[in-house]
Order: sequence, then C-alpha cells, then structure tokens
Amino acid sequence: MERYERPVALRRELHRHPEPAWCEYWTTSRIVEEVERIGVDELLVGPEILAADARMAVPDEDTLGEWHDRARAAGAREDVLEQCAGGFTGALATVERGDGPTVALRVDIDALPITESTAATHAPAEGGFRSGNEGYMHACGHDAHAAIGVGVLEAVAESEFPGTVHVLFQPAEEVIGGASAVAEAGVLDDVDHLLSVHVGLDHPTGEVVAGVNGFLAVRQFEAAFRGESAHAGGHPAAGRDAVQALATAVQNLHAIRRHEDGATRVNAGVVSGGTATNIVPESATIEGEVRGETTRLMEYMSERADSVVEHAAGMHDCESAMETVAEAPSAESDAELADVVYAVAEGVDGVERVLHSAPLGGSEDATYLMDRVQENGGRASYVGIGTNHPGGHHTPTFDVDERSLAIGVDVLAGAIERL
Amino acid sequence: MERYERPVALRRELHRHPEPAWCEYWTTSRIVEEVERIGVDELLVGPEILAADARMAVPDEDTLGEWHDRARAAGAREDVLEQCAGGFTGALATVERGDGPTVALRVDIDALPITESTAATHAPAEGGFRSGNEGYMHACGHDAHAAIGVGVLEAVAESEFPGTVHVLFQPAEEVIGGASAVAEAGVLDDVDHLLSVHVGLDHPTGEVVAGVNGFLAVRQFEAAFRGESAHAGGHPAAGRDAVQALATAVQNLHAIRRHEDGATRVNAGVVSGGTATNIVPESATIEGEVRGETTRLMEYMSERADSVVEHAAGMHDCESAMETVAEAPSAESDAELADVVYAVAEGVDGVERVLHSAPLGGSEDATYLMDRVQENGGRASYVGIGTNHPGGHHTPTFDVDERSLAIGVDVLAGAIERL
Amino acid sequence: MERYERPVALRRELHRHPEPAWCEYWTTSRIVEEVERIGVDELLVGPEILAADARMAVPDEDTLGEWHDRARAAGAREDVLEQCAGGFTGALATVERGDGPTVALRVDIDALPITESTAATHAPAEGGFRSGNEGYMHACGHDAHAAIGVGVLEAVAESEFPGTVHVLFQPAEEVIGGASAVAEAGVLDDVDHLLSVHVGLDHPTGEVVAGVNGFLAVRQFEAAFRGESAHAGGHPAAGRDAVQALATAVQNLHAIRRHEDGATRVNAGVVSGGTATNIVPESATIEGEVRGETTRLMEYMSERADSVVEHAAGMHDCESAMETVAEAPSAESDAELADVVYAVAEGVDGVERVLHSAPLGGSEDATYLMDRVQENGGRASYVGIGTNHPGGHHTPTFDVDERSLAIGVDVLAGAIERL
Amino acid sequence: MERYERPVALRRELHRHPEPAWCEYWTTSRIVEEVERIGVDELLVGPEILAADARMAVPDEDTLGEWHDRARAAGAREDVLEQCAGGFTGALATVERGDGPTVALRVDIDALPITESTAATHAPAEGGFRSGNEGYMHACGHDAHAAIGVGVLEAVAESEFPGTVHVLFQPAEEVIGGASAVAEAGVLDDVDHLLSVHVGLDHPTGEVVAGVNGFLAVRQFEAAFRGESAHAGGHPAAGRDAVQALATAVQNLHAIRRHEDGATRVNAGVVSGGTATNIVPESATIEGEVRGETTRLMEYMSERADSVVEHAAGMHDCESAMETVAEAPSAESDAELADVVYAVAEGVDGVERVLHSAPLGGSEDATYLMDRVQENGGRASYVGIGTNHPGGHHTPTFDVDERSLAIGVDVLAGAIERL
Repeated sequence: MERYERPVALRRELHRHPEPAWCEYWTTSRIVEEVERIGVDELLVGPEILAADARMAVPDEDTLGEWHDRARAAGAREDVLEQCAGGFTGALATVERGDGPTVALRVDIDALPITESTAATHAPAEGGFRSGNEGYMHACGHDAHAAIGVGVLEAVAESEFPGTVHVLFQPAEEVIGGASAVAEAGVLDDVDHLLSVHVGLDHPTGEVVAGVNGFLAVRQFEAAFRGESAHAGGHPAAGRDAVQALATAVQNLHAIRRHEDGATRVNAGVVSGGTATNIVPESATIEGEVRGETTRLMEYMSERADSVVEHAAGMHDCESAMETVAEAPSAESDAELADVVYAVAEGVDGVERVLHSAPLGGSEDATYLMDRVQENGGRASYVGIGTNHPGGHHTPTFDVDERSLAIGVDVLAGAIERL
Repeated sequence: MERYERPVALRRELHRHPEPAWCEYWTTSRIVEEVERIGVDELLVGPEILAADARMAVPDEDTLGEWHDRARAAGAREDVLEQCAGGFTGALATVERGDGPTVALRVDIDALPITESTAATHAPAEGGFRSGNEGYMHACGHDAHAAIGVGVLEAVAESEFPGTVHVLFQPAEEVIGGASAVAEAGVLDDVDHLLSVHVGLDHPTGEVVAGVNGFLAVRQFEAAFRGESAHAGGHPAAGRDAVQALATAVQNLHAIRRHEDGATRVNAGVVSGGTATNIVPESATIEGEVRGETTRLMEYMSERADSVVEHAAGMHDCESAMETVAEAPSAESDAELADVVYAVAEGVDGVERVLHSAPLGGSEDATYLMDRVQENGGRASYVGIGTNHPGGHHTPTFDVDERSLAIGVDVLAGAIERL
Repeated sequence: MERYERPVALRRELHRHPEPAWCEYWTTSRIVEEVERIGVDELLVGPEILAADARMAVPDEDTLGEWHDRARAAGAREDVLEQCAGGFTGALATVERGDGPTVALRVDIDALPITESTAATHAPAEGGFRSGNEGYMHACGHDAHAAIGVGVLEAVAESEFPGTVHVLFQPAEEVIGGASAVAEAGVLDDVDHLLSVHVGLDHPTGEVVAGVNGFLAVRQFEAAFRGESAHAGGHPAAGRDAVQALATAVQNLHAIRRHEDGATRVNAGVVSGGTATNIVPESATIEGEVRGETTRLMEYMSERADSVVEHAAGMHDCESAMETVAEAPSAESDAELADVVYAVAEGVDGVERVLHSAPLGGSEDATYLMDRVQENGGRASYVGIGTNHPGGHHTPTFDVDERSLAIGVDVLAGAIERL
Repeated sequence: MERYERPVALRRELHRHPEPAWCEYWTTSRIVEEVERIGVDELLVGPEILAADARMAVPDEDTLGEWHDRARAAGAREDVLEQCAGGFTGALATVERGDGPTVALRVDIDALPITESTAATHAPAEGGFRSGNEGYMHACGHDAHAAIGVGVLEAVAESEFPGTVHVLFQPAEEVIGGASAVAEAGVLDDVDHLLSVHVGLDHPTGEVVAGVNGFLAVRQFEAAFRGESAHAGGHPAAGRDAVQALATAVQNLHAIRRHEDGATRVNAGVVSGGTATNIVPESATIEGEVRGETTRLMEYMSERADSVVEHAAGMHDCESAMETVAEAPSAESDAELADVVYAVAEGVDGVERVLHSAPLGGSEDATYLMDRVQENGGRASYVGIGTNHPGGHHTPTFDVDERSLAIGVDVLAGAIERL
C-alpha cells in the first residue's frame, strides 16, 4: 500500500543524504517538494520561521558554504537553496480548515557527524542506502521523523479535520540549536496542542509512549584556554601550556560531585589544542556539555564547570573563556494530551503495548517549544514510537525498523484527528 | 656590495614562502635556481639524496599534494616539482676541485605551522615580506640558513679551495625527519669535516659559537586512544571515553619524575579527540615528544611515557597505541674542528665575541649527520651565528637581524677555506 | 512524665559518651544496666550474638584496648567489659510471652570520629552533655536510637503482647560492619517481623516514614599503594611515588562515569601517605567507598574503582592492593508491614504527617538483617522518625529534637503490639 | 688504636639512638659527655647557640615532650635535658689557643623518620646496633658526622694549633631547620674558615671531595586545604572535598613545567586528609618541598606551587593556606679553602682519590652558615668524605663504611691544623 511504502522510500532517500545541524539544505529542498506534492495552505521556509538571533550553535560560514555547495551538487532546488542560504533551514507546512483547534506536529531533520557502519549486518549498508556524505549519518532517526512528518501531513490533508494543522520540520536539534529560534519567531504561538515525536529510545517496535518525560536540561559550552607558545625543548618554562589546562579541566569536569537530588551528566565531547609537537600549546578548546534531571541540577553542574575551567586555566597560568553554545530547559508532557495519544495508539495496527509515560534520559530542544506552548495556555506531549534499533542512538550501527514509520503516522495523524 | 645584499634578498624571498617539512617544493625549486646560477659540479635533488624508508614524519598524500599545487601556483619549476613529488624535497650541491679534503655544510630549509605576527614592530610585516602562506612561518630562521648556504656555496665556488665542498639543503628538520634519510642515503659518507649552522639561539648579533653542544636527544610520538562512543545523556556508562584517557595521560606525562642525571623535557604539543558535544568520545590523539640531555635520559622519559599512555587508556577502559614519529640522538661537536671555526670567526668583520661552546637546549636532527660523519672517522661541528631576534624561536614575532647573514657566510666560507 | 523523661535522660548520657564502631564498651554496659532494670527473659551480650568471622572493619588491637580502658575509667561494669573484650559489643534483649508472633526491633549504638561543635547554639554544648570523648560524637542519632530501643523494650515488657520481642542493640553500623555478624549468628532467624528505626533523615519532628526505601548498596574499601622511597633531592628518579599514584587514583575515582540506570556515589574518605617532606613516598592508602542505587550499580562502581586503583599504581610504577573492608546490599521495606506502622503512627501524639515511603539516599547494614529475615519468609520495614536536626547527619552541629524520642517509642511499641 | 676505635664505638652508640630534628636530647647529652671528657675552653648548649625565632620546622609540644621523656628513660643527663627543653638541642665546643685564625667545623646530628632494615645483610642489624627507636633511623650518616666531630675536637685539642676552633654539633638539618637559628644567634660571626662535612653522597670509601658544590636551594611547605564535611551517601553535593583538592594539587605540583635554566625538584612527601570512609573530607594537608639548582629556580617552583595549591582548592570550592616550613639558599664552596683540604687529603692514609669539586644534588641548611661566614668576609667549604653505602641516603638499608670515620677525622683535623 502506498500509504506505508512512501514514508519508507522517503526515509531511505533522506538516510542517504545526512546533513548536520543548520546545513539541511538538500533535506529542506526535498521536504518542500513533498509538501508541494501534497498541497497545503501555507508553506514557510527557513528565515520565515526562525528568529535569527535565537539560533544557537550555527557553524562558521565556510562550513555552511560547503554544505550549500554539496546540496546543489546533490540536486537541491535553487529557489530553496537561495531561501535557506546562511544556515536558515527547515520548513513549516500548514493546513487550515476552519474553526477547529490548532494542532502542531514537530519533527526534526538533522543528522550527526558519525561515520556510518559498512557491516553487512547493517541494513542501510546492505540495502544500498548508506550515507553518501561520508563522516555523517542519520544515527538518531531524524530521517524517520521527517518521513513521518510528511506522512502525517498527507493523512490530515486528506482527512476531515476541522481545525488548523502545522507540521514543523525543525532544523538543528542535535546541537540543541533550532527550537529556540522557532519558538522566538512566534510561529507556534497560536497552537493549542503540540505533539513532538521520537522513534526508538530503547522501546521496541510495537511499543508507544504517549507522553515522554524525564528530559534532561542541558547546557552545551565551549571552553577556550589561551596560554603562550614557546619552544618545548629550548624554553619550556617560557611557555604557558593551554593543553595542560585542558587536561586538568577534563579530569575535574568528570570529577564534579554527584548530586543527591537526581541525575547529572557531563561530557567533554570534542577537544583540540596546540599546533606542533615541539611547541608549547598556546591554545586549546573543549566543546562539552552538562545536564541535569532538573534545570536546577543542570545549573549546579554548570556553575561547577565554570569554576573548573577558570581554575584549570589559572593553575597553568592561562586565560580562559567559557561560552554557552546552546541550552535547553527540562519540560513535562501534559497528561491530558498524552491520554488522547494513549487512547488512539491502543487501536493502531501493529501497536502491542502503550505506556502512559517513560523517561527520555537525554536532552531535546523540543522542550523550548513545549514550554512556549504551555506558557501560552496550550498543551504539549512528546510521543515515543518504539522501533527495534540494532545499535544505540548516536552509534555507527543505529537503524530503525521501518514498520514503525506507519505506526508513527497512524498514531499521530489519529491523535490530531481526535483532538 | 652584492655579496651582502644577495643573501638578504634571498632570505626575504624565502621568508615570504614558508613551507612545512617535506613540502619545501617551491623552496627547493628556488634553491636549484640559485645553485644553477652559481654553477656547480654536481647537483642532486630530492630522491637522489634521501633514503625513502628513513624519512620520518612525512605528512599524508593530501597535504603533500596541496603544497605541491601551491608551489606550482607560486611559480616553482616543473622539472623540480616532478623530481620532488611525493615529499622528496631538498638538494645537495657539490663543488669538486681535487685532492683537498671533503667538507660539507648542512643547512635546513623548512618552516613551521605558526601564524606570523602582523604587528607594525615586526620587520617582515613592516617590510612587506611577511608570510604569504597564512598559518605558516619561517619562525626558526631556516630562511636565513638557506640564504647562508647559497652564499657559502658562491664564496667557495669563487675561491681556490683545493678539495670537495658539499652544501646540503636539508628538508624536514622541524619534524626531526630529514637528516636520517640523508644519512642513510650515504651521500655524506665521504665527508672529512661536517659543519652545520644555526642562527640566533639567544646569542646576539656579533656573537659566534664555534661548536654548539647540549643537543637534547628526542623522541616524537603519536599516542592514539580508542574507546567506544555512546550518547552522553542517555547512556553515559555505555561509553568508554578516549578523551578522559587523553586528559589523564597529559597530566601524568608532565608529572613524569625529574631525573637526577640531567635535563629532561616533555610536551603534549597537539591534542584532539571526539566528534560531537553530546557523544562520548571514541577516539583521541596526542602528538607529543620527550627529550633528554643524553640519549639515556630520553629513553627514561620515553619508557615512562609508554607506561603513562598504556595505563591512562586502561584506567578508562580504552585501548591505546603508541607510535614513534621521529627520533634523534644527542651528539657532540668536535673541539678540533670548532677550534678552526673559532680562529676564523675572530677575524670576521662584525664579530665581537666568539665562544668555544654553548648549549643548544633543544633537539636537532643534524645529530644524525654528525654521528654518521664521526662514525666514519670524520669530524663535525655545529656553528651558532648570533642574531638579535625580537621574539623567541618558534614564536609569531621571531625575526633575524640580517647583518648576521654576511657574518654567517664569512665564518663558514672562511672555515672551509682554512681546512 | 517518666515515660518521656527517661529516654531523654538516657539519650543525653549516651551522647556524652560516644564510642566508635566495635568499641561500644561503655555503651553496652549502660544498656545492660537498663535492660536489667526493666527485667527481661533473656539477655545476650557481645560474642553471643556475633559471628566472629562476619564482623567487618574491626579496628586494630591497640584501638580496641584503648577504648576498653577508657570505658573502664568511665565506670563500665567489669563483667560486661570482660564479655565484650576484643571488639564484641552490643546486646540482644528478649521478652517471651507465648504463642504470638516473633518481632524484632533493631537499633544501632555506635558514634562517629567527628569533633562536636562547641557553639552556644548547639544544644548539647549549651546543655552540658556535649561529647566527653573529644574527636568523637553521636552525629547520626544512634544515641537516640538506643534510648528508643530501651523505651520500646520497657513499653512492651509492661504490655500484654502475647508473642516474643527481641530488641537488638547492634554495634558498628557506621562502618557497615555489625549487622552481617548478627545475621550470620542466626539470632534473628526466628523473626516474623523486623523493624529498624532511624531518626531524622531530613524529616522534621512530627513526620514518620512507615517504610523507608532507597537504600544504597555500598562497598567500603582500602586501596594500598606501594612504591619505593628515595631522596627527593638527590635521586628523584630512583623513587617510585605512591602519593602520585594515590592522587591519580583519587582524581579518577571521582571521574568514574555516571550511570544511566540510577544514582551512584564515590568517596575517598581518608587518605594518607609518605613519611617525610624530602623522601619520595613509598606507601599511601585510600580508605574509600562506592555506592549504587542497586547492588548492580554498586558493582559497576566497584569494578571501575578496582581498575582505577590498579592503573593509577601501574602508571607510577607502583604496586597496589585493593581490599574490601565492608559491604552491604540494597533492600526493600515490605509494604504490608509498613502499612501497620502507618496505621499506628497516625494515632500517635505529636505525629503530624505519615509517609508510606521515602528514600534513604544512604547505606545501612540493616539491609543484611532485612534480607535475612525476608529470605526466611518474614517481613521487614525500616521506620523513619522525623526530628528537627540543625546540622546534617555526620556534621559537628547535628542534634536531635528530643520530642521525637517519645514519638519513636510510641510508634514502634504501638506497631509491635498491633502485630 | 684508640684513635680509630673510639669514633666507631661512638657512631654505633648514636646509631642505636636516632632522634629526629629538634628532639636530639639524648644525642646532645651524649655529645656533652664526650666534650667534657676531652676538655674544652667553652661549651655552649641548646638555647645558647640558637636564635629561638629562627628555628624552623619545630615539632609540636607533645612530640617534643615525648622525645624528652624517651631521652630521660635512655639515660640522658638531667642538666642537659633541662637546658634543651622545648626543642633547643645541639652544642658548640670551643678550643682557644691564641692569635691564630678562627676555624669552625660544623657537623649535624639528627636522624630520620625511617624504619631501619632488619635484613641480615644490613650491618647494624647483624652487629646489634640497629635503631632502638623503632620508626626512626640514622639513614643519612649524621651519626658518623657527630662521631667525626668529636674525633676532630679531640685531635685539635691535642694539637698545637695556635688559633680558635669551634666544633658545632648542629640540630635539625633534616628539616632544614637548625642552621638558620645558629647563624642568627651570631655564634659563628668571628669565623675565618668554616668547614662542613658529609659522608657518602655516592662517593666510595677512599674518595674525598675538597669542596662540594651544586647545593639545591629548597623550600619546604605545608599546604592545608579546608572544605566542608557531609555524608558521602546522602548529601554528596553538600560537601566540599578537601581530598579532591589535595589530589588535584599533587598531580599538578609534579606537572610544574621543567625549566631551561637548570635542575628543579618537587615532592609531595607526606599527605593526609579526611576522617571516615563515609564522610566527605573536610580537611587535607600536603607536606612538600620544591628545590632549584639556583635560588631563582627554587623561587620559580615555589611561585608555581603557590598557584597550584590555590587553584586546586578553588576548583573544588575549598580554601587553602600555604605555609613555608623551612627554606635554604644555594651556596658555593670557596676554591681557596678547598685547595687546603685537597692538599691535606692527598696525604691522608686510606685516601685514594681526591676531587676538587662534585655536585651535591640535594639541599643542606649548612648553606645558611656558609653564606653567613662568606658575608662576614670568611671562607667556607663543604667537604665530602666518601663511604661505601649499600643503600642510598634516606633508605632503610643505608649504612656507612666505618673506615671512613678515621679518614674524616684525619682530613678535617689536618686541614684545620694547616690553616
């Protein structure tokens, strides 16, 4: 049946074209094509749905330009490329039908800087739709999310739903960078019910979580250390070593004391420093993050991290600068909205088990949108669609069970029609 | 007088075109032009003077190719580019006059990955001959060395010296990678007297060191750590963190115990690791070095460094690999040869003070050549030509006092003629 | 009323005489006096209730001897001192009335190596019952526990309860060292219902927790590092530095990765090493602990700690030994037994709020007894009696609100009579 | 011959009675007996030769009292014990003969906190004169120094030397604590020639060093960290962990950058912290030292150490205090005075080789006295008397070859008589 085949085909196509945060040029172009095929009442692209200043963790011009070129080479539409230039990606498709409620579905569309597995046991490798952008991969299922988004849009466009439906194809979730820009743009300020969706999360195919909770608040930071270079053989004591400062900081970031009030996290995800083997390193950088089960716990970690970076620098006679790259609060799914999802999911073909709630154990910038809608008096729920995934999220062998795409479309479109 | 102007002009031209180790394509081409202008009995280029397997720290094909292209764009000769392709740079010019002794002068020609100062007080910036290869710089005076080498060649070619004179324009000294390849090629095996030269070394203009000593033996290494990636928020304990291993290693490399037998050094010059802020880093690398006042002290540091890397990895459940990138022994200048330099230098115009000996406090792959010549029964001396340098070696404001070029030519040509 | 005054007076007397784990000689003697005053059917002391081999974390002979002498000087009974010699402290008092159920109440009696506050705002200092054993303190309320135990014994002895009641005055809880010895001795193997009690735990006076949960499994360890001494000035490299190993271990113990499955803890509680400022330290020791929300999480931490200690030693060319000093599993209160406590507590004078459950957030060797009783088919509940405490547990200003003693007696005696 | 037997017997007696710095009560008493046996013109004891305020690293009253008692029990004279009470140990014996020059010999008399070997191969163990003060040991030869001092005094008292001779039995060298107090007391201000002596120093029996050089300047410090205690299971984040600060400091003290100007040293010789396995440590202490080949290098290390301690504390939210316990400058032996020693030594029986100079590679508070005498216009030389020593200085198997005692007496008495 086309209804089930189309999302799978689209997901595979997107899987072959992973693009990192703010560089989803080809992806946006491909989504625009699908939305135009379906036909909607309004389609906003890139800068029309993003508050420029609220975008976080935007890469430098060179990187943006390189992916822009790559998208053109891969066949992206010129008009979309022009609209999105400078890292303004993503789209918002709207179907307006009258006085019914306004419902939004948010899906995210970006990929990760991970080299995809080439193992024969890895279905995309075996099936010929492995990443064509070497070093990048849809290792978190956003390809499936985008395909589900298109599927839901098509379903509600064909339905008799009496209200307004937005489907938001959000950029830059992986860097916690896109949702705040959408929230600040105000394009979801009229929403009564916000649904977000994520596949997998260690739930198997056939399992649905009506309202995910347990979002970790997060702060992503860049810590820069600056010392002074010198010849490492001839003048070791004339140097002030930024890499020693970095090493001291990494050790002590992980040694921030555990907190009795709940879960915390810390990661020094990317480090770099120095220029040559025989030169005392003048500069070094940590791209890291801290998280907390609550916003307060994240702030505890964050304050300690500030102190660690400052003192690690001071200890090695270096200067430091600590910048927040991205941040997201924690959030809660509304039980009332989750109840609707729960009821619908129980009747969907292929669903074997529905959970009212389950913890995410990670961070998500969807929390910005959830908080925004809730502050405006609306309700929000974050829906989990189980999928058997051989490797964990963010690993080279991650994959989705494509049967879950139809389930996702049915649960979400069904819930929207029920509202 | 042309004799003093030409080296200065050449040095400035070379200063504008810094090329890193094994990438001295343009530089070699330019030197070949000068040698041909002077006229010699034999000129060997690139592969003719290098034992391919003994080259150390050769960059990857892409980097070599990029500099090859850049040299062509800067006007390097096609025939030289062809000869040098694949990182076979450098040249050996020989003047043969009969039964006299065989003397060699070794100068090095590579530059460093340092961004040159743009300050008005920095003469190359002010004088319009600042680096044209942004990010790279002649920050150790090898531009002056090459110019002195050409000057000496011209002087002895015009002299009545009765023996054989080689001038070796050696590549890749900064990575301790070139001299062993020249030594292994055997092209200096007939040498009775080997002179090497270095400007500066914290000696002012007018000061000459007849026989530098205190070479630090060195081992440059690359330590690679491999763990396992995982989502830093959702599955922190499923990851094995290569950056934690790196940080533990850096801290403990610097904490290797000082040795009662003499000076030691350690540097973690370049570090990198991880792929994304929210992924537990799977791999990380340290490019570092250890040194010792004697080869035994270097080996002490080296064994301890091996142990630190292995245990830092084990502590964080990672694997590690430790590779030697380059190595150089210590060496001693021969007092008898230094005596000749001393006697000549005292009579050179502009020389105010001559020292029999002074310590280098760094490492040099010239020691491979010195050891080779001495093993074959010849003598070697490493000559220091003082020059006022505003910034230290290997810093963005390093510069040479160009008056020292003529002094260098006079001292070295004079010493050769005296032998 | 005597019923309320007696426990307060006894608690103050015990507060003046804090004794650390396995050294509760005076305390046991004083409890024996109270039990004899009340009159019971059986009284077992020290070795009669302890499996010698299952005692954990027993101090050395000198320490035991010193506290034995001190107890004698403080007026302990000679017969009790003799029975308890060698670190066999504690007592079990039994009232037997017939065919009713067998119920046990477990209270712990040891103090901590903390110097008590002398501040005027600290009630024991102001009231004249501050610690007389300088450097030691009842900073966790075990003085109150012992007083409650005596109060409950007196109440049930006077009641018409038709079964058997044991009150266990358990030694060495603070070192997680006593309960396993009692469990192994088998003296509670006939118990149908086991109640344990703790005051405070951040619950205010008037609050009662019917069944505490959230016990952290714990392993206490001693890590010993051995290197080689040398003169730090003359032969630094001849030494192998156990304190460097210790420092590396402490840093990396705290840096053990957080776990997604729940709370973990790590502490390097006591460290020592070295003999003189100018000697490279030959030996060093960490007395530390790891904990986990589940026994599996504790084991995760424990395995990582083993690895950290081993590799920290190896990195500094030292040997290491890792010994388990004490261990306790996690445990769960039985809801059915907690329900009885809940029902009784609601009717007790002074009780304002009863919670079915609340997390402990720490470790307790009562879990050994709870597990033992549950394995034998009985039920166990750990009862929290709220008390306003100005300082936190294990701090110099910890104190209890003495109104909570009567509440504790009433709740526990009431629950026993209801069973 | 008595001349050779007496020093050996005295040395063994002193070896059996090692006493640490400022606690040399028995030792001083025993020396006083010897001096009185010989008969001198003046004998000053304890406070008469020490400026009270300039004493460094004096132990606490309890320790002083304990060793005072122990000395009494070992048979020390009451009058000497009384004079020395409170840690005023040592003595100055003077022979005055007229108008000749004033010469001083300085020997040190304290022992170390090292447990002596019990191996059969260790001569003191085998010969029955192993340390009777368990845990303490003459592991640096000061027992031999004192015996040589007595021997020299006896020899010059019997000689015809026409001037004044002081023999200083100096306390507290091992803690770099005694010489400054003697210098400040002014008792050597009239000295024309100062000789100091040390046995061993890796020179074999029969070798003499006329003027030792290469004294390392030293600063001994105590770094104290203060945080806040908390229950490690229940409130880990409420604690501020002084042991984490200590560990960070130790790691980074050893990682202070090596210096191009010469040798440096660092040691964290004694560490301690915390009170219980399950309490976050509130306080911790490092007793450590830094050294430098010159006073400037020592100051470099010292400033870096201050910074490390401060930032290690700050990083873990602790306070720190850094106190200097003792300090000594570097110094130089006068060549003219060494020449006299050299000439005499060549003629001494048993001497096989005399060196003009050799480096110490350690620190010595004799440098205070040398500097003082030299500032007053006198000369100083530090004489090394070789001795075969099986274990290194400051190790449990250190021992002296007793043949070197007679050599020491002959060289030093001979040099004094020659002046």
